[in-house]
Amino acid sequence: MKVLVLGAGQLARMMALAGAPLNLTVSAYDVRSGNLVHPVTLEVLGSGLENGIADADVITAEFEHIAPDVLSVCQASGKFYPGEEAILTGGDRRKEKALLDKAGVNNARYQVIESKADYDAAVATIGLPLILKSALDGYDGKGQWRLKPDSDLEAIWQDINQFLQTSPQGSRQCVIAEEFVPFDREVSLIGARNAQGDLEIYPLTENIHTNGILSVSVAAGDDDQVQSQAEAMFKAVADALNYVGVLAIEFFDVGGKLMVNEIAPRVHNSGHWTQQGAEVCQFENHLRAVCGLPLGSAKRVRPTAMINIVGEVTVPIAVMAHAHVHWYDKEPRPGRKIGHINLCADSAGALGDALDTVSMLLADDEFPALKPAADSLR
Amino acid sequence: MKVLVLGAGQLARMMALAGAPLNLTVSAYDVRSGNLVHPVTLEVLGSGLENGIADADVITAEFEHIAPDVLSVCQASGKFYPGEEAILTGGDRRKEKALLDKAGVNNARYQVIESKADYDAAVATIGLPLILKSALDGYDGKGQWRLKPDSDLEAIWQDINQFLQTSPQGSRQCVIAEEFVPFDREVSLIGARNAQGDLEIYPLTENIHTNGILSVSVAAGDDDQVQSQAEAMFKAVADALNYVGVLAIEFFDVGGKLMVNEIAPRVHNSGHWTQQGAEVCQFENHLRAVCGLPLGSAKRVRPTAMINIVGEVTVPIAVMAHAHVHWYDKEPRPGRKIGHINLCADSAGALGDALDTVSMLLADDEFPALKPAADSLR
Repeated sequence: MKVLVLGAGQLARMMALAGAPLNLTVSAYDVRSGNLVHPVTLEVLGSGLENGIADADVITAEFEHIAPDVLSVCQASGKFYPGEEAILTGGDRRKEKALLDKAGVNNARYQVIESKADYDAAVATIGLPLILKSALDGYDGKGQWRLKPDSDLEAIWQDINQFLQTSPQGSRQCVIAEEFVPFDREVSLIGARNAQGDLEIYPLTENIHTNGILSVSVAAGDDDQVQSQAEAMFKAVADALNYVGVLAIEFFDVGGKLMVNEIAPRVHNSGHWTQQGAEVCQFENHLRAVCGLPLGSAKRVRPTAMINIVGEVTVPIAVMAHAHVHWYDKEPRPGRKIGHINLCADSAGALGDALDTVSMLLADDEFPALKPAADSLR
Repeated sequence: MKVLVLGAGQLARMMALAGAPLNLTVSAYDVRSGNLVHPVTLEVLGSGLENGIADADVITAEFEHIAPDVLSVCQASGKFYPGEEAILTGGDRRKEKALLDKAGVNNARYQVIESKADYDAAVATIGLPLILKSALDGYDGKGQWRLKPDSDLEAIWQDINQFLQTSPQGSRQCVIAEEFVPFDREVSLIGARNAQGDLEIYPLTENIHTNGILSVSVAAGDDDQVQSQAEAMFKAVADALNYVGVLAIEFFDVGGKLMVNEIAPRVHNSGHWTQQGAEVCQFENHLRAVCGLPLGSAKRVRPTAMINIVGEVTVPIAVMAHAHVHWYDKEPRPGRKIGHINLCADSAGALGDALDTVSMLLADDEFPALKPAADSLR
């Protein structure tokens, strides 16, 4: 079976590696060049989305910020999973919040802002502090604001209004104001849903971010009651989208009560640990779901941690004696994810020890989340 | 780092899949076509062994029946691991038996037969029954004889003599007569050795053959004393060859005492279970060893069985709900290995149950070893 992935990055690459043993041939549509490429070898297989669609049995995506015309032509083919609506929802904060409400899952109070009246209403109704984010992808780092009690509300509105007027996405753009949630930790849940509505859900992963980029994910066992909350919300959201494929949901944990932060309609960085830690990894389960093959078990085999390799850092080969290194064959650039490290152990405590051992081989300023992650497990 | 594999079959394919996350680019030299290909996509990357050698940082092999001129030009490059001598030894029963003697490991009594006098001496000294095999690869199924007490010794000698006179390998060919060993079971040991002599050895695998082809391998735990014997012999053989890479040794188990049957200087079918059952699989550990990277742990994570998919058989997709299917993207032909199935469980008994479940989905005449393997575990 032939699978076309929209996007030719590391997620398509890892899908191709997971698909090969199943005789699934994965190619990728590079949205920048318009080329069809093999996501591992980067061999150019052809060019043009129409050709890619014609040649594929199934189409899927590795990211959600995809031009609407690309999505609609894929949807029209009848081969696209999880499909246009799911991808649009993952890429548009306004649609995403509406979905969370429709699915009846707990999420932060919010207000859609398209005018000064909306802005004033958000301040009056939700109160300060407020987090404001553009609904669609921002550009050049723009599209995020924080309103604190001492902020100059008028100046920030001028900036937001300027942003809305000049957004390349035009009238589809807006800003979502959300209540500030003082969460204890961020966890995520990855799961697969097939066309029949069957689910295979992995155990919760606890995520540590550094400078806004995922740094370490740990799947070492979680509270059953928290896992149950997450699974119920996962099912509600996935069913509401009639979702087919792997879906990721990020939650805030506030005193043991979960609140959905955001969803990603695709395989997710916080699920990379499943390559070594779960019976069947997220990449294979995504392919199984979109290709109509039986889902594989999402059971965790043993406590596992994932460490992102971001930017121009040094990873000595000695790390390989203790861990699984996954490189993406990408040129290092500041802030760019170029690989990850999976680390397994027989118990949560032993995983803490293993993280500690690996942290001795890596620079503290390049991997600042390692030591806290190790300490939290012991 | 770029690795060239001599041979473009499923072993090179699985090396390429295991190497990609390590940023190891694996290409294959197809000895039949003379092309350099990507072993997964089969993209033709070039042609000619000399070009492949020039482009590679490291050269290795996926089989041992390789023309001597190919081996010597690889050896001359200084990049070839485990190297000419190891591959020649694996492909020549005379050299292999000499190695086993040199390493001082237990193996069946034998006699090299190049003449009628040798033949008579084997019968007189070792006695009947005798197993006779050509030292180098036979052709058209020729090159194997059995001498039983009621055999026509003279007629068989005429056939052997004819075989020797007409062997395409000429004077390098001979026949090895070996005592018949009434073994209880066949087990194999897979391990990796690096250039410094460090070893990572997997636990023993029990192998069940059907019509002379490996059918099922089970790694579900073995007697410590038997494992120790196997490891000591592994070390003796690997050290004697100054071996670098993954080496496989097949043993006869005769009442708890092991005897080396044969060695394979490469990753081995009976080690495919390590893809799901061990911390680091044989394909990755072979690449780590030949590339001078740290060896990964050969620890078994959980009881695992491997079922070969041979010839024109039917594997319903329902099997995927219980197991990991690895296809080789090969056209089915009688006797041809076209894939394998890995099956894991938390205990030996549970593995027996899982094998039983999968056997219910597969035809008994196509997978005759499944039921006995399941029963032996429960």
